[in-house]
Parts: sequence; C-alpha cells; structure tokens
Amino acid sequence: MGLIRVLSADDPEILNSHGRLLEAFIPNLKVMSQCIEGHPKGLWNEEEERQAIPKIVRLGQEMERNEGVDVLFVSCVADPGVPELREVVSVPVIGAGSASAGVALSLGEPVGALSITDWILPPVAEVLGKALVGWERPTHVQTTLDLMSEEGREEITRAGRRLMDKGAGVILLACTGFSTVRLAPFLEDRLRVPVIDPVLSGGLIAYYAAVGNEAMR
Amino acid sequence: MGLIRVLSADDPEILNSHGRLLEAFIPNLKVMSQCIEGHPKGLWNEEEERQAIPKIVRLGQEMERNEGVDVLFVSCVADPGVPELREVVSVPVIGAGSASAGVALSLGEPVGALSITDWILPPVAEVLGKALVGWERPTHVQTTLDLMSEEGREEITRAGRRLMDKGAGVILLACTGFSTVRLAPFLEDRLRVPVIDPVLSGGLIAYYAAVGNEAMR
Repeated sequence: MGLIRVLSADDPEILNSHGRLLEAFIPNLKVMSQCIEGHPKGLWNEEEERQAIPKIVRLGQEMERNEGVDVLFVSCVADPGVPELREVVSVPVIGAGSASAGVALSLGEPVGALSITDWILPPVAEVLGKALVGWERPTHVQTTLDLMSEEGREEITRAGRRLMDKGAGVILLACTGFSTVRLAPFLEDRLRVPVIDPVLSGGLIAYYAAVGNEAMR
Repeated sequence: MGLIRVLSADDPEILNSHGRLLEAFIPNLKVMSQCIEGHPKGLWNEEEERQAIPKIVRLGQEMERNEGVDVLFVSCVADPGVPELREVVSVPVIGAGSASAGVALSLGEPVGALSITDWILPPVAEVLGKALVGWERPTHVQTTLDLMSEEGREEITRAGRRLMDKGAGVILLACTGFSTVRLAPFLEDRLRVPVIDPVLSGGLIAYYAAVGNEAMR
C-alpha cells in the first residue's frame, strides 16, 4: 500500500506513524509512506489544501510508477487530490474521509463528526448524507500537541458529548491528527459509543480494494 | 466474530464457507458460524425473510451469551434482523448489505448492484442513495447451482455489462450467494472494474468494529 501523508515530515517516526498503525492492525500488510513538500503544518485551511492537490497527484503517480504499489491511500479526511488521482492512475485510490464515513454508516446509527476544522468536509457530508447529525470542534484545540494534553482531552470529550446530545450513536473522528495521537480508544472508553478512526478504517478499506478479491481465487 | 448464516445447513462445509473466506483474508481472525433452522433454501423471498428475523435475533443473543463473541456479522445483503439485534445485544452488529454498500461508496464511482432478487434491498438503497445507478439480476439464474455453470456465468457477465452501460464504475454483489461461489475475482477479470464482495467487505468492517481501536492502545 502506498500511503500519502499531507504534511511535510523529515522525521521518519512522524512520516511512518499512520502506516505503523495499519501494519499493527493487519499483519500481512506492508505500507510505504511518502509526504508532500512545503506543508509542515499539514493542510489546515482551504488555501493550503488547494496548493497541495497537484503535489499529491504528482506523488501518487510517482508511487505507482516507481514503487509498484497496489493501492494508494490519501491519509486525510478532506480526501485532497483523490478525485484527481483517480483520473490518472490505474490502481484504486482511497481517501480517509469517504472511506471512514462509509465504515461509520455500516454501524447503523446517526453519526456525529469530531474535527479540528469549523467547516464540514465535503467527502464526509456526501457519504453520510442525512445520517450526519452534527459537526463539532473542540474549543482551544489548534494543533496536534493540544490533542495530547490533559486539558485537550477534556475539551475533546466535551465536544463528543455535544454530538451525543444531538443524537449521535457513533462518533467519526474527522481528522487524521486524531489517529496520530491514538484518540479513538480513549474516547470510546469515555463516551461508551463506537468511535471510528479515519486511518484504521480507511486503510482497512484500501487493503480490501487492493487485495481482497485475490484471497478468493 | 460470530457469523450468522441465514440458510439452514447441516453440512459444516456449507455452514463455514463464509467464515473460511474471511479467515483466509484476515490471518488473526477467528470466525464462529451458526445458522438458523427451517430455511434450507435461504431467504429467497420477503415472507421467508419476515419469518427468519426472530430466529436471527434469538441466535445472535445466544451467541453473545454463550460464546462471548466480540461482534455479530449477519451474512446476508438484506441485513435481516440487524436493526432488531442492535436493540438487544451489547456487541456491534454488522450486516453485509449496509457494510458492503459503505465499502462500495469509498471507491468514488457510481455503483451498480447485481443481485438474484428483482427488488432493491433497502440497506443497499439507503446507504448508496443517489450513487446507486442500477440494479440488475442475471436472467435464468434461480439458485446457487446456476451461478456455478458456464451458462450462469455468461448471464452474470451480461448483467454486469448492463450495469456498466448505466454508468456503473463499481459493481456491488448484492447477494452473499455470489460470495459462496467466489464470483468477485472472475467478474473483475471479465469486466475490468472493481467488484465488491459482500462477505469479505462486510466481514472486514465487522473485524474493525470489534477490535480495530484495540490495536491502538
């Protein structure tokens, strides 16, 4: 699997963190991670996202050509570059947003999304449709570091409770920064409802898209 | 994983066939399969389905109580008994219909569904919404045996082509009988578009629902 990180990272620990989560979950999966240049803080607004799309497309094409990946997984809930990549590569392209929203739907409950953006990301809204009952952002949480502090975790728990008050029976973590800090098991313990992690669930679907049917031959 | 077959089978080969597909695909998964009584031909019409629902609910409750399963997977695209089971058990309940439709959505193409029923199954229609561009049934195909003959496979290929003519870029196999005869790789070779198998994709999501977040602790 070729995994595209949409933040720029020199540190291999950061670059490979999402791939490692997936390899721990799916024993026979091998993930190769690469990142785009020039976005050290990730895609934190729509302008950054617009600038990143051609870079994501170029990187995906290179990974298909040079590394022979069976699938490309764009590890960002905004699915940046996913439609554009599908036009130009021959392997399946999975985005963390539409894929994790599809997984959330399969649990049959109204879904509440927790994000660090104020705006509702289009792939999540499109897939969930009327099953999306709310979109919340924890207050005072600006960066991944804030997610790791005790105070940040309290803010996130409160935002999750606001979603449940709106009727959510499933929480979708609508930012892969939540995956980096491994928030899902913590929040599931706190809220006692299923919490969908975007990297694990999206990567799992990418694994199926790449090799699932081969297991049946 | 507790897997519920909605046809009655004495033969362990038949009973365990879907579980074996999943175990071959996910190495560290253990599947326990059980079936309901009194439906030797499966749920081939709506009256059979109605009669089966209380049996599915009772069986799922027994599997939770006696076997300690982490998740229940109803291996039928009609999701029979899934909403009712969710009311009475504490583990996640995944149905092959809504789950495989969620996986199909993550590929970002209009979806065509291939089934052996004339009527569109509600969980597929609900999850896919306007992404569902067609529902086709191969002519002269009545039973699983028909699916395995050379002629049956030609009929299925033709039905798949009719879906592509309607704009489908992904084919969802909307009957788990297609999984039993391992149709997905055959059809993918013939049609050159992704073909979503309901047992593999639904079972994969059930695996995530049961143990996914545990891998992050």
